[in-house]
Amino acid sequence: MKNKVKTAVTPTRVEDYPEWYQQVIKASDLAERSPVRGCMVIKPWGYAIWENIMDVLNGMFKATGVKNAYFPLFIPLSFLEKEAAHVEGFAKECAVVTHHRLEPATDREGLVPAGPLTEPLVVRPTSETIIGESFSRWVSSYRDLPILINQWANVVRWEMRTRMFLRTSEFLWQEGHTAHATREEALERTHMMLEIYAGFAREYLAMPVIKGRKTPSERFPGAEDTLCIESMMQDRKALQVGTSHFLGQNFARASQIRFQSPQETEEYAWTTSWGVSTRMIGGLIMSHADDDGIVLPPKIASAQVVLMPIFRKPDDKSRVMEYVKSLEKELSSRFYHHRRICVEVDSRDIGGTRNWDWIKKGIPLRVEIGPRDIDENAVFVARRDRKHNDKTSMKREDFVGGIVNLLDEIQQNLLDRAAENLHAHSVKIDDAASFYDYFTPKNSEKPEIHGGFAHCHWCGSAGCEAGIKEDLSVTIRCAPFESEAEEGKCIRCGGPSHSRVIFAKAY
Amino acid sequence: MKNKVKTAVTPTRVEDYPEWYQQVIKASDLAERSPVRGCMVIKPWGYAIWENIMDVLNGMFKATGVKNAYFPLFIPLSFLEKEAAHVEGFAKECAVVTHHRLEPATDREGLVPAGPLTEPLVVRPTSETIIGESFSRWVSSYRDLPILINQWANVVRWEMRTRMFLRTSEFLWQEGHTAHATREEALERTHMMLEIYAGFAREYLAMPVIKGRKTPSERFPGAEDTLCIESMMQDRKALQVGTSHFLGQNFARASQIRFQSPQETEEYAWTTSWGVSTRMIGGLIMSHADDDGIVLPPKIASAQVVLMPIFRKPDDKSRVMEYVKSLEKELSSRFYHHRRICVEVDSRDIGGTRNWDWIKKGIPLRVEIGPRDIDENAVFVARRDRKHNDKTSMKREDFVGGIVNLLDEIQQNLLDRAAENLHAHSVKIDDAASFYDYFTPKNSEKPEIHGGFAHCHWCGSAGCEAGIKEDLSVTIRCAPFESEAEEGKCIRCGGPSHSRVIFAKAY
Repeated sequence: MKNKVKTAVTPTRVEDYPEWYQQVIKASDLAERSPVRGCMVIKPWGYAIWENIMDVLNGMFKATGVKNAYFPLFIPLSFLEKEAAHVEGFAKECAVVTHHRLEPATDREGLVPAGPLTEPLVVRPTSETIIGESFSRWVSSYRDLPILINQWANVVRWEMRTRMFLRTSEFLWQEGHTAHATREEALERTHMMLEIYAGFAREYLAMPVIKGRKTPSERFPGAEDTLCIESMMQDRKALQVGTSHFLGQNFARASQIRFQSPQETEEYAWTTSWGVSTRMIGGLIMSHADDDGIVLPPKIASAQVVLMPIFRKPDDKSRVMEYVKSLEKELSSRFYHHRRICVEVDSRDIGGTRNWDWIKKGIPLRVEIGPRDIDENAVFVARRDRKHNDKTSMKREDFVGGIVNLLDEIQQNLLDRAAENLHAHSVKIDDAASFYDYFTPKNSEKPEIHGGFAHCHWCGSAGCEAGIKEDLSVTIRCAPFESEAEEGKCIRCGGPSHSRVIFAKAY
Repeated sequence: MKNKVKTAVTPTRVEDYPEWYQQVIKASDLAERSPVRGCMVIKPWGYAIWENIMDVLNGMFKATGVKNAYFPLFIPLSFLEKEAAHVEGFAKECAVVTHHRLEPATDREGLVPAGPLTEPLVVRPTSETIIGESFSRWVSSYRDLPILINQWANVVRWEMRTRMFLRTSEFLWQEGHTAHATREEALERTHMMLEIYAGFAREYLAMPVIKGRKTPSERFPGAEDTLCIESMMQDRKALQVGTSHFLGQNFARASQIRFQSPQETEEYAWTTSWGVSTRMIGGLIMSHADDDGIVLPPKIASAQVVLMPIFRKPDDKSRVMEYVKSLEKELSSRFYHHRRICVEVDSRDIGGTRNWDWIKKGIPLRVEIGPRDIDENAVFVARRDRKHNDKTSMKREDFVGGIVNLLDEIQQNLLDRAAENLHAHSVKIDDAASFYDYFTPKNSEKPEIHGGFAHCHWCGSAGCEAGIKEDLSVTIRCAPFESEAEEGKCIRCGGPSHSRVIFAKAY
């Protein structure tokens, strides 16, 4: 017992990382599995994070001229078939609507599908083809370009093995779709959106990311180039946080998005698409959560502060609650990075469970207020990025006046820790034996936590990439933009290479 | 020609009201039909209205303790079947997913559905049953109640005859779902949400509404009581703008939402649901649009002001644009009812088309700025609620300083006009002959615009209700809360009645 510290979540990360992930989601009340295969229920504490993500990204998108719109949930099968690589990529995971009503079964109780559709409809796995059809009608001259559209929507990609937030059959996302008159302008937009994602991940989610380019085998089906941001989780696996695709003229050809140029020639438009999803919340959990629950970065947290009144005697109640209510009002009227500070008041009389509930929910600041604190006009403050029993008494005015700095400090602390994890488990490896050794679990106590980001040379062949994936379940996450030109030999075949790529296991 | 005034939209309301509705949507760039049967594309100018609706309603909901969450798109068929009246009500309009992938056809080119599902999934037409399943797990004691949840989502109800915004197979909406320990509390919530809808429609959409109760035949399938708000469109038909349902214990029984009471007995919860949808935008159009396009109430408008620079000579351009940019900045930094004023700048050099584009789009204020205006530090302002050529020169500082009042004046004016329309076409009718005459089109020039809201006595029998519906396509919109007790005779059978209900044709 002596060495065993009790944690709020069981098992711990070291004991069983995948199970810890499920339990931490349960403990924090973010989401739950639903009885519908592969779908999840996002509970209020989890959905509030998504609302904050939408709010911040909307502002960033709109500042670059992007406007929101909404396109149909269903895509006629024939639309999906227009781009060969695209349909190939999504055919194996499409939910297909084949009927439009239900009628009583003839052989038993209950209802059966009826009213068969002439052409089956696919529930959108992504909307390039259906949005392309609109673009083809919206564009006729170069003067109509660029078109800069974003949609917040649910999409469905049928999954056999699901993991909440990371891989679910239905998920929420935004998908941006743009059309341009020139290749250069479309490329510029592809990079611009990746920069927005990278900045958002770093500044709001406190997740340091690596920007780079996918290999051909990992590209979006139908894209000419896929850019991505990759982040390292606490088990040292990579998570793709966002992608931005340069689609060349492939989808413009498939959907006939044509325009008359200033020279009066008929041209195909150049298009892009880019997206992030509720997967980001999975990344947020695995970047910051600990064995006591999730840890929310203040800038994106469902709420920043919980006030917990303490009554020792029944007589205290009205006095304490009055004080708490006035503090709630004062804090809620202040802003933290353009949004009002969100304050929860929890006056449940349930003992220590109350404090632990909020630790598990990852709220940045827990504040206890009892009669003695009020006598001294003070509050008792605990930070989620410190030990659970590390509490400080602060004068109320200092707490209120300094709350923005306090939250910023927590935000920065989480980013620093995540950056440290990324740094500590990034290596350069130049020989095959070390490479294979690096990705082989050694410590039987924590088999799930091993490896990291291996910066290695690769000859560029799909064969070497596939061989490594088969042997180790390790993939090339990206060719980082920051990789310097450097001559080397492919980690698998020894063939020539001119810069390093990142190999890692991934979600 | 003399009497024929040219309008921006053809046909006019009087000429062909249904066709005018389609054309006004096209002219205003709000939305378009999609190639997917029954689905629409909501374009940026239309979607911005929906974003504003979401923003305002979110604030109103949250102030009453409601939290947002997200539940699965798909509902297992067996869930839907749990409540008999419910499944009966929706079976004829369900999109059914029967397969989870596509594979190459054996008899031709192309793909066919594959991977049949053991149990078909229905694309949610509404979420009582799937949310009820979660509630059944969230509730065990009276201490867990109430649960107050809302979800913003897309839903699908297959429609054969569609009309943009008013009736589409897929639409966007919010659906609130609450569970309570007592009947009284659930009833209170049902009424509370109706009041929120009514206030929102009036204050933001400038639509006067009548609050009332649906007859049993018009109730939500499975509800014990359906409350509604009904508004009158310009063709005097009724539009149901929002509904709030008291579900009794029906869905709690179907989904087993049970709790232990303070007396330690096991009880079924009392539930409610309530929703408004993109249909509101259809109502907005038909309440305020004229023969020149839509007219947006400032509080919910996609943007409030467009600035249109005028250059007579190329030399003017930089000076005018600088002035326009500074005015844009000044206006955008001001607030109109808790939201920043949204300003568009249109510097396209396309002649009079520019001005008409914005008239058709219904922006509340159009502002022209040329070199002469700048010399006088003035702007040339046109209001959408006045004639298109009614323009006023205003000092810049007066315009900026008075813009909130100006917008409020427009908002009030639209509400007054809509209220006038409602008042002018509301009648009490007490004999069958007059009733039938009232709902029979007389003027061959405008057969679509006739009738109104007939406040009549009704005996309460479903037979009389159905008979009138069959004869005239007129339905009972609601029994208004404000109807006074009054003895009378049923308009159809002459049987006794104790208060009036509203009969009307409806969307």
